[in-house]
Amino acid sequence: MVAEAIRQVARQPRGDATRQSILDAAEKVFADLGYAAARLEDVAQAVGIRRPSIVYYFPGKQQLYDQVEADIFASMHEFVLKRVKHAEGPMAQLLALLDAWLDFLVARPTAARIIQRLVADFAPRGDNPVRFSETALRDIETVISMGIADGTFRQVSAMHMLNGVAGGALFYVCNAAQLGEGRSYDPADPAELAGFRALIHKLAKAAVLPG
Amino acid sequence: MVAEAIRQVARQPRGDATRQSILDAAEKVFADLGYAAARLEDVAQAVGIRRPSIVYYFPGKQQLYDQVEADIFASMHEFVLKRVKHAEGPMAQLLALLDAWLDFLVARPTAARIIQRLVADFAPRGDNPVRFSETALRDIETVISMGIADGTFRQVSAMHMLNGVAGGALFYVCNAAQLGEGRSYDPADPAELAGFRALIHKLAKAAVLPG
Repeated sequence: MVAEAIRQVARQPRGDATRQSILDAAEKVFADLGYAAARLEDVAQAVGIRRPSIVYYFPGKQQLYDQVEADIFASMHEFVLKRVKHAEGPMAQLLALLDAWLDFLVARPTAARIIQRLVADFAPRGDNPVRFSETALRDIETVISMGIADGTFRQVSAMHMLNGVAGGALFYVCNAAQLGEGRSYDPADPAELAGFRALIHKLAKAAVLPG
Repeated sequence: MVAEAIRQVARQPRGDATRQSILDAAEKVFADLGYAAARLEDVAQAVGIRRPSIVYYFPGKQQLYDQVEADIFASMHEFVLKRVKHAEGPMAQLLALLDAWLDFLVARPTAARIIQRLVADFAPRGDNPVRFSETALRDIETVISMGIADGTFRQVSAMHMLNGVAGGALFYVCNAAQLGEGRSYDPADPAELAGFRALIHKLAKAAVLPG
């Protein structure tokens, strides 16, 4: 399965197997329930261990959540770098970046839900709101400013691109089974994904090209 | 203030003043904390009443939340109808719809956060996932299918339009103060809003026009 292959690439296992199992389970629990409703007990049960075994690795819920969020953004950034380095010029790089985010989120829908919840939050949880997402934000800001600098792109705001174009991948993944049977789709289905990817490319070009 | 004027139009007060105060406070509490973390006590405290007074109007958290969500989508639908009826032809109607959603969400950011959380949820909370959002979904589906039927639009999926274009308004509102000082903006600022609106129009046209 393509999605599973990407998932394996996208993950960055560190440390021992139990620690990784805790992180995998925690990502799913935080994605499904949100930070507030998630309990360390839910994570322990999903892994098949007891609560104290989690606390051996992560002192509390906040630390566990932080590690999950850090892993998501680190993996996403790695994934982008691999794709973008093969692309030449700002437009190819922008499309490669958007493709990478889309493929990453389709392969790892738990990440999509966690980022979606992050956007919904009224105020950042910690002192530095972009401690983990900074790399992702810089990835898109860098390619946009390169395109503007060399005259390929018009003066477009990176935040507008993030909100208006890049964010679509999150909705595409999260809305797949949310809106009733008649509106459901499989985001990993090749034809469905190709259709949405073509739309994102069209939108990206319309957004940045002059005129 | 423009936002306050739209807010007044956008709200549909029903019943007595206390009930409305409870709903207003609950919308803010659910938007800020999410369903799981929100407590009736938080709502009572925000209104300046005691918990039993809420229970007089709403038997529990689920019923209160349902009424908040129902009000949001009913108000959004009313707001769209007023705007769309002045527009002639599918393209003007599509842009009027997207403008209406954008203005509605800018004026009522609590609604944006609640919808954003709804999208993040793994599975619908009740038996009918679109009990409240159905009207909004139909609004965009109707204009898209009209445009396709009369040949103005290419064969574009309404779900792709929702995810790829319409959803941007949610990110625009929710991300305004989330990503650190250097990336913050006021979504109600006229110049900022005009810039994002122009982008949304550009994207909508690129998405639906043939070629």
